[in-house]
Amino acid sequence: MSETSRDDFFAGSDENRISGDLPHAQYATFDEPLALESGGELASVTVAYETYGRLNNETSNAVLVCHALTGDSHVARHDADDAPGWWDIMVGPGKPIDTDRFFVVCPNVLGGCRGTTGPFSTNPATGRPYGQDFPNITIGDMVNAQRRLVEHLGIERLLAVVGGSMGGHQCLQWAHAHGEAVAGIAVIATSPRLTSQSLAFDVVGRNAIRQDPHFNDGQYYGQVHGPDTGLAIARMLGHITYLSPVAMSRKFEATRNQPRDVDTDFEKEFSVGSYLAYKGDQFVERFDANSYIALSMAMDQFDLGEGVETLTEDLGRTDSRWLVISFSGDWLFPPFQSKQITHALVQSDRPVSFCNIQSSCGHDAFLLEDDFDRYGEMLRGFLANVAGDGTSSLPENIDEPYTQSPTYIFHRQERLDYQSIMELIPAGASVLDAGCGTGGLLTLLKQRGHERIMGVELDELNIRTCIRRGLDVVQRDLNRGLKWFRDGQFDCVVLSHTIQAVYDVEALMDELVRVGKRCIISVPNLGYHKLVEQLVQTGRTPQAETLPFKWYDTPNIRVLTLNDFQDFCDEKGIDIHMMVALDTEAGREIPHDQHPNRNADLAIYVVRRS
Amino acid sequence: MSETSRDDFFAGSDENRISGDLPHAQYATFDEPLALESGGELASVTVAYETYGRLNNETSNAVLVCHALTGDSHVARHDADDAPGWWDIMVGPGKPIDTDRFFVVCPNVLGGCRGTTGPFSTNPATGRPYGQDFPNITIGDMVNAQRRLVEHLGIERLLAVVGGSMGGHQCLQWAHAHGEAVAGIAVIATSPRLTSQSLAFDVVGRNAIRQDPHFNDGQYYGQVHGPDTGLAIARMLGHITYLSPVAMSRKFEATRNQPRDVDTDFEKEFSVGSYLAYKGDQFVERFDANSYIALSMAMDQFDLGEGVETLTEDLGRTDSRWLVISFSGDWLFPPFQSKQITHALVQSDRPVSFCNIQSSCGHDAFLLEDDFDRYGEMLRGFLANVAGDGTSSLPENIDEPYTQSPTYIFHRQERLDYQSIMELIPAGASVLDAGCGTGGLLTLLKQRGHERIMGVELDELNIRTCIRRGLDVVQRDLNRGLKWFRDGQFDCVVLSHTIQAVYDVEALMDELVRVGKRCIISVPNLGYHKLVEQLVQTGRTPQAETLPFKWYDTPNIRVLTLNDFQDFCDEKGIDIHMMVALDTEAGREIPHDQHPNRNADLAIYVVRRS
Repeated sequence: MSETSRDDFFAGSDENRISGDLPHAQYATFDEPLALESGGELASVTVAYETYGRLNNETSNAVLVCHALTGDSHVARHDADDAPGWWDIMVGPGKPIDTDRFFVVCPNVLGGCRGTTGPFSTNPATGRPYGQDFPNITIGDMVNAQRRLVEHLGIERLLAVVGGSMGGHQCLQWAHAHGEAVAGIAVIATSPRLTSQSLAFDVVGRNAIRQDPHFNDGQYYGQVHGPDTGLAIARMLGHITYLSPVAMSRKFEATRNQPRDVDTDFEKEFSVGSYLAYKGDQFVERFDANSYIALSMAMDQFDLGEGVETLTEDLGRTDSRWLVISFSGDWLFPPFQSKQITHALVQSDRPVSFCNIQSSCGHDAFLLEDDFDRYGEMLRGFLANVAGDGTSSLPENIDEPYTQSPTYIFHRQERLDYQSIMELIPAGASVLDAGCGTGGLLTLLKQRGHERIMGVELDELNIRTCIRRGLDVVQRDLNRGLKWFRDGQFDCVVLSHTIQAVYDVEALMDELVRVGKRCIISVPNLGYHKLVEQLVQTGRTPQAETLPFKWYDTPNIRVLTLNDFQDFCDEKGIDIHMMVALDTEAGREIPHDQHPNRNADLAIYVVRRS
Repeated sequence: MSETSRDDFFAGSDENRISGDLPHAQYATFDEPLALESGGELASVTVAYETYGRLNNETSNAVLVCHALTGDSHVARHDADDAPGWWDIMVGPGKPIDTDRFFVVCPNVLGGCRGTTGPFSTNPATGRPYGQDFPNITIGDMVNAQRRLVEHLGIERLLAVVGGSMGGHQCLQWAHAHGEAVAGIAVIATSPRLTSQSLAFDVVGRNAIRQDPHFNDGQYYGQVHGPDTGLAIARMLGHITYLSPVAMSRKFEATRNQPRDVDTDFEKEFSVGSYLAYKGDQFVERFDANSYIALSMAMDQFDLGEGVETLTEDLGRTDSRWLVISFSGDWLFPPFQSKQITHALVQSDRPVSFCNIQSSCGHDAFLLEDDFDRYGEMLRGFLANVAGDGTSSLPENIDEPYTQSPTYIFHRQERLDYQSIMELIPAGASVLDAGCGTGGLLTLLKQRGHERIMGVELDELNIRTCIRRGLDVVQRDLNRGLKWFRDGQFDCVVLSHTIQAVYDVEALMDELVRVGKRCIISVPNLGYHKLVEQLVQTGRTPQAETLPFKWYDTPNIRVLTLNDFQDFCDEKGIDIHMMVALDTEAGREIPHDQHPNRNADLAIYVVRRS
């Protein structure tokens, strides 16, 4: 096996971690005791950290990056000669967390083993390393130590805290405990608490470490061997959970029975076995078993509650703006948990964007380049928005609203439809645009001064565009309803160009009139005389400006007339408050007494629950 | 914590395993050496087994049940006083594997630790237990030992082999190596080989055992302690993989921080931790670590190849009839692997039924009662079919075809539609019914003597009915095409009452004309004069016998006229060979010169690729 192919094989999110010194680390020591959530205290705390970029005079450009379970302060290279950082794709000059603009601070967590006070630090009571006498620490304690560092650096309010996985837990804790000190919070691949399955893997890992005969109750520092086998086994388990099943197949299936020749005492019968053995052995070189236990236990005990209600209490009070990102292939911190966070924030009227990035990389996706073009740019746009210069980063080619939507039904007469909807929305009203596309309507509303506006959209590229436009948009399939939203949460809910593409129309309509005090819904009309004539004359399903597809390839799976829609509203107890009927081909409005069901190809309704 | 709630908490698929003697086990010792696939041999082999029911005079009613990794010969109780068996739900008088009808044989596998020769058996060369000197065994070796037992019992051909998980591997191996000796093969929650992810968990488990300092290279039998910690850790890992994430949440979330008070050296900080500790400790009492290594390694090395091509070679030669069952929540043996098996069998024209049972129980589903009403009855029907008395078990209430289909469009005139389709199918033709519902059409074809008939259906209750009717049906969403089938595999492919409910009509039509030498397709007609008149007169989307739903709740998401369908065929290079136009309301055929596009509400087309 050549070195080159070995490198490819073993490359991964943690491959470039260094085990030696961190030459760029700085150290801040706080001699005032740190009270711990468990009730104990640490007499003195040292925090190792690295910084990038410059703090501006207003101290308003600081971004705190929180690392995951086995990370450290070295988030990125400081220069070309520097060792790789664990998030070089994200942090650096011109990168999404742009060190030319922002002052980036990345501390090693409390309990860690890379410079910050942890189990390997000297216990003042004994003069020896703490080992298992290191007090139980929590995510809250980690954040309190970070807070001291931030104050020490002269920063009163952070522009943003950003973190993935356990780093996301720290961000959530910042929101929970010190929300007033953070303008923006970006959490990636994280959770309000671990799932039982994820927790179970950690339990097994800790059992392997603690039952290793070299563990010696945590006092192994003077020994020839520490609990290396146990720690390696915990790490092997971790590696399985960081990858998706698909990523593992991709990596190992083809060479299943061709293990790499690694120097190890572990099984190397299968390709995947040699990989795990290598990763396990390598990890022991750079990580301390007591830290692994302390940090994984802190992560496992982090708990913002099971239900969205508790979560709403915990997170709803913050003034911060939020970005929540998950990955579809992540089974360690599965997307439904990011959706819970988003649900709680939406319920609390917090400005939040959410996207579940389609990715086959598993939990590791947040550290890898594969899907970075999408979520990296979302973070870039988000930070620009929090910094107050969001729309300045707008790309040139997104000034044309709606055109990216597959259900787009207007080819020439945008202005007519636009004007009509804008005219129906009272000045200053709060608006939810259900199916907002690239955010055309929301942008107009923003320009008109509406403050509380939000979008729901399914397509992740559209969401990226919306965020870059300075808008708050959460990803959701309208077929699954609007359950994140409260009754009557918005003055207006808009459903534009979409009703005919929804499978479960009844459920969605119920949701729209529940969430909106009024709803503005545009309906394409099969009863339009040109369509009916076409059917009668050709004996074929009609096509038109408003129904431009063929019967077999249209995304529009519901066909209805204006009469049908009106009957439906009658039946379901929905009041039609107003209707504007349009002949978009002719570019004119059809008065009510001129048979809209025959003469309009589209109508815009204002409706509400009776 | 009361004993009662503790019992509930720890109950599960393996809870009732006994660790003492197996009083009903019989033993067959074969002194002729067993040649092993690895090249070695075992000088003598003993097989422990249990039997249920009576072998009939024709020796034609024997069912071999193959157990999974940690099972044994005690598949079921022998009487009311007997200890529970591991598959009591499935095997017994009146159960799906009915011991009143069948002679059931369940052997402990080679390499096991419950009576059959394994690592704990005495090595004739040393007079001590083999330990790690026990030769490498394979699933093939296990099956060869089973073959000896079956011959020893005077059985030339098994009515069926049945097994789940690693038991399924044994069934696949029976097909591969001794297909002529088995009439029916039922595989449940199994795979052609383990996924890399599943394999990885086994590797970590074996590492934990082998690196346990009490392992002593496998010669721990005389010691006070064996590799108990390592074995318990392997088992904990196993338990996580047997449950689905949903099942774990259900079991542990509510009492997350209330661990049960178990007597263990392992961590019991969390509810799930106490569960794993208990299960791990308990397993050590009843299982031998060397066996665990030998059997899990045999399972991991079982490999019928990565692609469907290899699999087709391996399984395609058998004459057996097949039943393949997977569970949607199973991530250890995920459904796509059962689909690979089905794909290979379908490609090879093997009679096969397949269903992926919707279940939240994970891999353990095949041992639990939760979803048993569905898959248990499929196995019952399958065994009846293999025994040649399939339709005798037909329930009374399924004589009415089609009525369960949500896209059902005929309310009164079944006979007309039926007759027309039957008349268009040449006698003896091979037929695939795409969207076969409860198998009404296929049953008529069977009665008319068609031998090679098969159904594709999505609904699992419909599939169950089909199997009970003696039909072979594979589960598949027609929107995902027919890729399991070969070009021109069937004389006729029928798509009845379905085209209007398919989203991707183009892709499906391509598939139909690829797989069928001719296709018979029924098309409901929006051009029907009564529908058009209704639209013109009422200004509303029409409803009729053939389109009985409302615009917002119909499963029929494609509306088309006969002209539209004919245009489509023209455009796509599909020849219309024949058309039968019907007015099903009036109960008559519309001749071609009487404007079918206006006067028929439905037409049946015979088409084929140009």
